[in-house]
Amino acid sequence: MSLKGKRIAFLIGPAFQDEEGTEPRKYLVGKGAEVVYIGPQKTVYRGKYGRAKVKVDKTFDRVRPDEFDAVIIPGGSAPEHLRVEKVAVNFVRDFIELGRPLAAICHGPQMLISADSLKGRTITCYEGIRDDVKLAGAKYVDEPVVVDGNLITSRKPSDIPMFNEAIYEALKSKD
Amino acid sequence: MSLKGKRIAFLIGPAFQDEEGTEPRKYLVGKGAEVVYIGPQKTVYRGKYGRAKVKVDKTFDRVRPDEFDAVIIPGGSAPEHLRVEKVAVNFVRDFIELGRPLAAICHGPQMLISADSLKGRTITCYEGIRDDVKLAGAKYVDEPVVVDGNLITSRKPSDIPMFNEAIYEALKSKD
Repeated sequence: MSLKGKRIAFLIGPAFQDEEGTEPRKYLVGKGAEVVYIGPQKTVYRGKYGRAKVKVDKTFDRVRPDEFDAVIIPGGSAPEHLRVEKVAVNFVRDFIELGRPLAAICHGPQMLISADSLKGRTITCYEGIRDDVKLAGAKYVDEPVVVDGNLITSRKPSDIPMFNEAIYEALKSKD
Repeated sequence: MSLKGKRIAFLIGPAFQDEEGTEPRKYLVGKGAEVVYIGPQKTVYRGKYGRAKVKVDKTFDRVRPDEFDAVIIPGGSAPEHLRVEKVAVNFVRDFIELGRPLAAICHGPQMLISADSLKGRTITCYEGIRDDVKLAGAKYVDEPVVVDGNLITSRKPSDIPMFNEAIYEALKSKD
């Protein structure tokens, strides 16, 4: 089934995890979706390992959460940059409230901590931040992909294929 | 005043922030202290920017907190590796209970979150983890160095000179 007509916001910032910031886009564009890179500045960000570059399509102040069918938050150091930008945190908080699929991998859930969106949710993440998501009220589990309602989470780059599939399934089932 | 006879544990792991993992050692050795690098493995760790290397002197299972007069935790990605090692977290928790000076910079306070040692304490840290330290019960302030009882914290590499001086003052006054 094609994802034609689906519009996905991919949140990006400095030192994103290279594959997490690019592979889901390739997969979802291949399925027919439109993927829009949203960042704090209209610039080109580099991956933390120098293996990828991403050009911001739109800045946070130019978009509204309800323009998108899903949001993806990659890991690396980008979430630590985005979570101190009020406009980015508000975007995530408001999007979560729409009940549409939000997918975060690795350090991505740091944004959900700052958006205060984890209370009572079951998620996974990079193990180095598991204590932080627990303090934010989440139940942490160590699995390649966890789907809890509209929230899709994964742990690390090797989980990307299952992460991608879970995003696809969530968007497909929203038709 | 010399720090001769003072023994300091410097907690180290993969991808430490280069200057934070080496400059305080140089400063304190220059003041006469003995600095021992403690890590999870008996190996050489590289700084995250490739500007420094550190050889572990002793592993966590070979040391006791009461052997040391102070503990230093540098930033970078090392704290996210150390905080998932039970032996490292226990070392920090037990050291804090001794009431001796513990100094953490940048991402270093992530170890204090995992050791559950931040309730009611006033600290600073890298701004990207400020929401996490607040959820762990700390009062976060944005200052180059914060001293709250035995706890010394700083935000980033440019704070190192003030961080070093605060560690020196704390050790000096414990005589």
